[in-house]
Amino acid sequence: MPSDEFIVTPWHVEGDIDYDKLIKQFGTEKITDPLLKKIEKATGEIHFMLRRGIFFSHRDLGRLLDEYEKGKKFFLYTGRGPSGHTHIGHLVPWVFAKWLQEKFDTNIYFQLTDDEKFFAKQDLTLEQTKNFAYENALDFIALGFKPDKTKIIINTKNIKTLYPIAAEVAKKTNFSNTKAVFGFTNETNIGMIFYTSLQSAPCFIEDRPVLIPLGVDQDPHFRITRDVAPRIGRPKPALIHNIMIPSLAGPGGKMSASDESGTIYTTDSPEAVKKKINKYAFSGGQPTVEEHRKIGGNPDVDVSYQYLRIFFEPDDKKLKVIHDDYKSGKLLTGELKAILIEKVNAFLKSHQEEREKAKSQLDKFLFED
Amino acid sequence: MPSDEFIVTPWHVEGDIDYDKLIKQFGTEKITDPLLKKIEKATGEIHFMLRRGIFFSHRDLGRLLDEYEKGKKFFLYTGRGPSGHTHIGHLVPWVFAKWLQEKFDTNIYFQLTDDEKFFAKQDLTLEQTKNFAYENALDFIALGFKPDKTKIIINTKNIKTLYPIAAEVAKKTNFSNTKAVFGFTNETNIGMIFYTSLQSAPCFIEDRPVLIPLGVDQDPHFRITRDVAPRIGRPKPALIHNIMIPSLAGPGGKMSASDESGTIYTTDSPEAVKKKINKYAFSGGQPTVEEHRKIGGNPDVDVSYQYLRIFFEPDDKKLKVIHDDYKSGKLLTGELKAILIEKVNAFLKSHQEEREKAKSQLDKFLFED
Repeated sequence: MPSDEFIVTPWHVEGDIDYDKLIKQFGTEKITDPLLKKIEKATGEIHFMLRRGIFFSHRDLGRLLDEYEKGKKFFLYTGRGPSGHTHIGHLVPWVFAKWLQEKFDTNIYFQLTDDEKFFAKQDLTLEQTKNFAYENALDFIALGFKPDKTKIIINTKNIKTLYPIAAEVAKKTNFSNTKAVFGFTNETNIGMIFYTSLQSAPCFIEDRPVLIPLGVDQDPHFRITRDVAPRIGRPKPALIHNIMIPSLAGPGGKMSASDESGTIYTTDSPEAVKKKINKYAFSGGQPTVEEHRKIGGNPDVDVSYQYLRIFFEPDDKKLKVIHDDYKSGKLLTGELKAILIEKVNAFLKSHQEEREKAKSQLDKFLFED
Repeated sequence: MPSDEFIVTPWHVEGDIDYDKLIKQFGTEKITDPLLKKIEKATGEIHFMLRRGIFFSHRDLGRLLDEYEKGKKFFLYTGRGPSGHTHIGHLVPWVFAKWLQEKFDTNIYFQLTDDEKFFAKQDLTLEQTKNFAYENALDFIALGFKPDKTKIIINTKNIKTLYPIAAEVAKKTNFSNTKAVFGFTNETNIGMIFYTSLQSAPCFIEDRPVLIPLGVDQDPHFRITRDVAPRIGRPKPALIHNIMIPSLAGPGGKMSASDESGTIYTTDSPEAVKKKINKYAFSGGQPTVEEHRKIGGNPDVDVSYQYLRIFFEPDDKKLKVIHDDYKSGKLLTGELKAILIEKVNAFLKSHQEEREKAKSQLDKFLFED
């Protein structure tokens, strides 16, 4: 792969992603200022993840908001492939989904695709992915979703509801379609080939339009859904995409739940967080304090700064001070890391408390067929 | 297709099938006299469908019987693709399965593949195939299966049980495998591609070996199952195959539920049966009575005779008299048809009564996840 190229698929992200190029490749639309204004009109504010371009791209969000303004309600759907414990990168679309739920007062469905991860990962059993699904569900609940408007779907558990809807999609999707969209080959297993129709299914679980906040790597699934929707008499899902969250090791891929050293898990102890960030967080600083003071750091590639921008410092003014101080050399890498460590640990302290409480709440959230 | 060729797949049967050639093509084993002796030893008799070669081929039946003799029990599994009403051809493997259930005192699972027929037939809805599934179930129950040892599976209804087992099979089956076995192409829908793993699933529903009595056209599914079984730590299913039941129009295909004029349904009135057989049943007789008396008829191609042989005249002596009289010209085609009409209507009178009773019995037979 030449250094200026990148790969973004639901199962593999590699390289330094050029998001403007990706928008063209995928055929999505950039989130523009007029669209932000439209969101602000409907919600009264612009979430910092929108202001900062963490959510950068969409499909049909303008149309959805126009219809909403005319009184047409929608629902939300997002999800997670439970291949391991939850890491902080996963929380990005979920936190944003919670904001959308509050602002638009909608139902939300959260799909845990235990079957997908079983099909995709040679060494994972269905038992293991299902266990991860329940673990991941706790992190979702911990974020504060309303139980009466939030339903968690686990594919193998809720297959009775999903399968007949998936069958409608599957009948209109052929192997060529999946080859074109996912790059499948003759050696791809038939579970993987069929699976995309199950990721489509929650789009049609209510008889109204859906909005899906999601990592842009998941977009290909919904290209198929959007092609099929009118052919089964259903509305096309609208999407809003977030960028890939870099691993601690830096840009050139998304944070992966299977790369332990590069990943901060929601269950990590304060000591583990401190150690991981200090040891692994890719730095935009200079090799020596002297050079750093003189030349300054590069916040654009510095993972600690990026984590603050993406998730941990919602206050634009405070973020700007950190940005400018780091760039000028006033703020050292160690100091920047210390800010992030404090923020992450403060967040995780509260999150882990909520996560414990979620264990007794789980039943209220699980979708019943 | 040259006239000496034929096609046998789960979704398409065409041509005059040479069953010895088919055994070679499919790689199955012919049912030999020593195997018949083994069956007789275990059951005390040889079912007329075995004596007459209606069940003509198998996979691993000898091994299964050897293990049975050593005390290793097995269970039975058969099924039906509910694309229409039940016709008398469908009853062949079911009647034989009932005999096996009685002789070996086993559980039996009967799978109704409403999803398969939805995927395979452009113009059928899932609602329609599910309705046919319930209709077909009544015919199965009407044959007198024991409710405590008989469970009817409807794929969309019991998907919660089937899907995790199917997923194990699907993970070990790739698109190339389905191309090789079913002749799928890039244009095949992904429901069809995945579906075979759901037909495998009941093979592993109990933790013991399975024997599947089935039409030989369904064998390809279980070639995949048998390849995958050892790779997921499960026993290979044993199979026993029946020939394709000809349509009224004669050899060169199986009786099809979608070709109304060539098909006798279990719900047909005595008048309809009489009319269909008299009008459509392919005759092995001569054009005129005079010629018939002189030359005689050909029972091998005469559909009325074949139906008596396959299903409606279990008494070998009576069948031989009919055979010889027809061949000598003593029995005219009209007289032969009259024998069949009487037999079919006697069977259907009782069957339709049992079928009515089955409506209140259905719940006892339906598999609960």
